[in-house]
Amino acid sequence: MTDYDLAIVGAGIAGLSAGIYAGRGGLKAVILDEGTAGGVANNAPIVENFPGFESITGHELVARMRAQASKYAEIRELVQVKSVTGAGPFELTLDDGSVKAKAVIVATGAKYKPLGLKSEFRLAGKGVSYCATCDGFFFKGKKVFLVGGGNSALCEALHLHKNGVDVTLVHRRETLRAEKHLQDAYFQVGGKAMLGMVVEEILGESVVTGVRLRKTEGGPSEDHPCSGVFVSVGYEPNNSLAKGLGVELTDDGSVKVDDHQRTSLHYVYAAGDITPGIKQMVTAAAQGATAALAAFDDLTHPYWAK
Amino acid sequence: MTDYDLAIVGAGIAGLSAGIYAGRGGLKAVILDEGTAGGVANNAPIVENFPGFESITGHELVARMRAQASKYAEIRELVQVKSVTGAGPFELTLDDGSVKAKAVIVATGAKYKPLGLKSEFRLAGKGVSYCATCDGFFFKGKKVFLVGGGNSALCEALHLHKNGVDVTLVHRRETLRAEKHLQDAYFQVGGKAMLGMVVEEILGESVVTGVRLRKTEGGPSEDHPCSGVFVSVGYEPNNSLAKGLGVELTDDGSVKVDDHQRTSLHYVYAAGDITPGIKQMVTAAAQGATAALAAFDDLTHPYWAK
Repeated sequence: MTDYDLAIVGAGIAGLSAGIYAGRGGLKAVILDEGTAGGVANNAPIVENFPGFESITGHELVARMRAQASKYAEIRELVQVKSVTGAGPFELTLDDGSVKAKAVIVATGAKYKPLGLKSEFRLAGKGVSYCATCDGFFFKGKKVFLVGGGNSALCEALHLHKNGVDVTLVHRRETLRAEKHLQDAYFQVGGKAMLGMVVEEILGESVVTGVRLRKTEGGPSEDHPCSGVFVSVGYEPNNSLAKGLGVELTDDGSVKVDDHQRTSLHYVYAAGDITPGIKQMVTAAAQGATAALAAFDDLTHPYWAK
Repeated sequence: MTDYDLAIVGAGIAGLSAGIYAGRGGLKAVILDEGTAGGVANNAPIVENFPGFESITGHELVARMRAQASKYAEIRELVQVKSVTGAGPFELTLDDGSVKAKAVIVATGAKYKPLGLKSEFRLAGKGVSYCATCDGFFFKGKKVFLVGGGNSALCEALHLHKNGVDVTLVHRRETLRAEKHLQDAYFQVGGKAMLGMVVEEILGESVVTGVRLRKTEGGPSEDHPCSGVFVSVGYEPNNSLAKGLGVELTDDGSVKVDDHQRTSLHYVYAAGDITPGIKQMVTAAAQGATAALAAFDDLTHPYWAK
């Protein structure tokens, strides 16, 4: 069993940033990921809003951060964390052995909920997007459909509309779930919506060329040409590790954190998409850095021992 | 008078990041700075902890962000904001004219308090540093002095010690102001301190080679060789604009903000070093992005009008 000051679970943007800050702070840190480094950031075809890079692929940005983090922390990919026990020090049981760490940062991310269509997965990043704040800019002047009816969906639709994207909201029910002031804001600016409709298929070979809709209650389908489909039907935090640890969660299953990314348990921190709020690469990077600095502080002079 | 959706005051990391996010969100934004873009980040000789860049000068990082932000927002340098009146829309009186904006982001930064020595200014970035989290790594295995006696100073000293830097704390009083648990943490790991001493001069031509100390009550001075001098005697938020606006401040003069970087006034946000807490480039960038997204939300569907 190898001993570390800090185990960071998840090698996405938050985890890699945490590794940089941990190592520079003198902590012996390991970053563990069940997949390869980068997480969902790898899927971004183009990133134009990470300060410092006018335009870069998600893959390239991740590769740069991975190389940088590897100078300061050990990175172990394709390693699953089966369980975590203890309360500082912690023991992390892996699929091949175990590691011990005085503190843990949970940076396991979240998954956007998909519609579940084969054509959706095939065209992801090729016109199908799960984040209007990230990708809306690429669809200026183009026609897109946005699927969803909650607060996030309305915010995303407003964002697209404001950005000069010709957006139509598609929702399976006849009424939207979003708060009224959001609905008002959207319809007051002339936002379009097709209610009581579901997406049957996303059309296109190499890029999105249209969408096939039908009424929720059934009936014939109709094809509408478009350049993009935004899916905004919620997301699922990857919280099985957090649940195992027993940290406090929000109603939607994210990990509750304070200003310093501390969770409800001493020596356990969370950063990135597993936490509530804005899900941007730059916020994930900042949260990772903040979590590592808090871990450093607590390991040298725990604030609760004042 | 030119009309904008958003005026961002301060073109440091936070302001530039806010500009990127504002413009991508479809807001017409202007970034105003009394100096040139970048703010204090320009002074960082080497930045190794901004995720995405293994090693870059502060100047180059700023230049990249400036170029990126200029795609999305108008950047006006060497323009002083004399006053701001109104409550959304606001009128900003400049030294050459005025602009009108529906929302304002205050990103005016903070100044580290200097000791006030000529040799200190001459050797800043050449062995004199105001941020151990940023620069401590460069002094691994080297001897440095850290001036200060408050909580920040003790945290910085611990950070350096943990990082393998041979650090000696210098404080003008015989007792430290920092909380006891911080003092305990520092001295328990063998931290060194010279109390009741003041820095008379920082020695060195092109880089720091030593420090000249004497007892606070007077007496002869003594020279000590060293590679670096860290100054941690507090900082001063550049809050005159914030004061003029009337936003709520913390005891130390920073601008109070919520999770979304909203201040106590509607349509006024703050980001970066003017806000309390961690002062890192990546956190400033994230706060700028968050502030711009909040401004966008409030301008399209104010949460207080629910």
